[in-house]
Amino acid sequence: SCCEALSAAGVTEFVGTAMGDTIGLVIANLESRILEKFGWDPKYRSIGIISDRVGAGPQIMAADEAVKATNTEVVLLELPRDTKGGAGHGCLILLGAEDVSDARRAVEVALKDLERTFGDVYANDAGHLEFQYTARASYACNKAFGAPLGKAFGLIVGAPAGIGVVMTDAALKAAEVEMLFYSTPTNGNTYTNEVVMGVTGDSGAVRQSLIAAREVGLKLLGAFGEPPKSLTKPYI
Amino acid sequence: SCCEALSAAGVTEFVGTAMGDTIGLVIANLESRILEKFGWDPKYRSIGIISDRVGAGPQIMAADEAVKATNTEVVLLELPRDTKGGAGHGCLILLGAEDVSDARRAVEVALKDLERTFGDVYANDAGHLEFQYTARASYACNKAFGAPLGKAFGLIVGAPAGIGVVMTDAALKAAEVEMLFYSTPTNGNTYTNEVVMGVTGDSGAVRQSLIAAREVGLKLLGAFGEPPKSLTKPYI
Amino acid sequence: SCCEALSAAGVTEFVGTAMGDTIGLVIANLESRILEKFGWDPKYRSIGIISDRVGAGPQIMAADEAVKATNTEVVLLELPRDTKGGAGHGCLILLGAEDVSDARRAVEVALKDLERTFGDVYANDAGHLEFQYTARASYACNKAFGAPLGKAFGLIVGAPAGIGVVMTDAALKAAEVEMLFYSTPTNGNTYTNEVVMGVTGDSGAVRQSLIAAREVGLKLLGAFGEPPKSLTKPYI
Repeated sequence: SCCEALSAAGVTEFVGTAMGDTIGLVIANLESRILEKFGWDPKYRSIGIISDRVGAGPQIMAADEAVKATNTEVVLLELPRDTKGGAGHGCLILLGAEDVSDARRAVEVALKDLERTFGDVYANDAGHLEFQYTARASYACNKAFGAPLGKAFGLIVGAPAGIGVVMTDAALKAAEVEMLFYSTPTNGNTYTNEVVMGVTGDSGAVRQSLIAAREVGLKLLGAFGEPPKSLTKPYI
Repeated sequence: SCCEALSAAGVTEFVGTAMGDTIGLVIANLESRILEKFGWDPKYRSIGIISDRVGAGPQIMAADEAVKATNTEVVLLELPRDTKGGAGHGCLILLGAEDVSDARRAVEVALKDLERTFGDVYANDAGHLEFQYTARASYACNKAFGAPLGKAFGLIVGAPAGIGVVMTDAALKAAEVEMLFYSTPTNGNTYTNEVVMGVTGDSGAVRQSLIAAREVGLKLLGAFGEPPKSLTKPYI
Repeated sequence: SCCEALSAAGVTEFVGTAMGDTIGLVIANLESRILEKFGWDPKYRSIGIISDRVGAGPQIMAADEAVKATNTEVVLLELPRDTKGGAGHGCLILLGAEDVSDARRAVEVALKDLERTFGDVYANDAGHLEFQYTARASYACNKAFGAPLGKAFGLIVGAPAGIGVVMTDAALKAAEVEMLFYSTPTNGNTYTNEVVMGVTGDSGAVRQSLIAAREVGLKLLGAFGEPPKSLTKPYI
């Protein structure tokens, strides 16, 4: 549990760990030279940190819920090439707050939400697929994906990248959605072996496009042998 | 076989899988918004897809044979940082065609040729070496490596990168070849731990330079303990 | 030993191997076309090569000792995204020399020093921490990190990156040191899952800041379960 892990770390900055090799941390008063280095608004002295090795989408969607629920702002969001030898990203998200209790609360909300946001991540030895959906995008989805605030947003990720090409094609054909971005390994991604697309539109259409992409993606990734499994429990 | 795998996937877009965690796919009529996003010639509505986790050279050389044999054109070629925790690239190649049967045929030719093009890829736990040769470079080698059309082309890859430095030095000293490009981890490669060089010239000289590089490379990579093994059967 | 490995490789260019999947190599007379490609001073015909899959800091610090001890100069230093599926870099360092015996000696010095410079590298399955210290930075630290020549220099690396944020904050609060650089996955690092900071100042202050960062870092990385272990023997 959260409290056992806290005592295991024995450090005030520690909040907890979660799936995806995710660690949640908080700094009550960030050193001014680091604040200045990034040029962040100096009122955000308290920083919540969500950092992981495996996955970016799940952590960004979880952070989106966290900023909805707290007085925090996404001040940094970077995607290393990681997944521990897998085909995708890791993630570093910093949330700024005026009050340390807000920063801590935001990290707790995000860590807890990861169980849900890993639900439509499917993987086998050859690659992974990811689908994310929100009926109302907030500031993390806006910063990371350009999702319009308060509107439905869907994310489609396929690795190896060619599977992403087929899935995104299927998604666009399945429903009247608007393509927000379309990224390939060296154009938009940080050299991951993924094609990633974000869509917006009517919430029913966004879900329909995700479901169409998921259907074809699961079959194609399954052609490598093992049926891809949800990492937790599908939510879309 | 191709047909069993096809039925395994149960999707019209699926063509087959091959070594290097390679998947071959085809889209009969690519969504116009994806075509527009890339700015491809709209006549290429049919897209053949070669996508893999492990290797770029083998897939590019195989695609080179595919474009020679079919009415297709390389419309996208990107190299993620991959090899599933190894030191090199994966690859995403999209082949445009006016007719879906051409796109499918190109992917089939490429998948079949991988058995050959992985022949001079050698690996052990510490790294890998790769050598590729063609007597007549075509459009995939031209796009990926700047190889002159119709001329002999040779490719030398060494990982870790320092082994590539020694191999490329040996290759240039062994025969009168012209250096087409020379790439290092952060200059030309997508952050792989490789030095890569392409050479052209008289076909005998190109082969001689590759053989000299291979001789020294196998000894050096073997200094890490395990003798590097060909992934299939050497062809150079 | 060095000599057995040399005979194992049976190539004049081979110097030895060391931890971190590091190989040491030397080229007596580098091909002029490679020299020209990089635009190096043509007097440096002899090149010492330190190339590895795992780690950049240990190899750079070891090269720093090597250039202090020999007539060599760092002519190339590049950091691939590597660590064999881990969260960090590999490294390619080329040392130029007028005389091949200097190049060889430099590589020997560096390989031997790696046992020491891996001493404050700590790792477990979730990530790694690294601390490096020198009382007098030389040309490799200067080229790689902008460290002022002859002054104390300290390096702090944390992966996953969020642990680096907390460690660098602690380091700056612990002692009066000057931040030389602060790099994040996509700003300064080559897409590694690390935060890296270099500091300079009074040698006592630099050590104090490193020790403060190490204390908190070991606890946080340990929160993922396994206590992080030194790869050899701590030296700071």
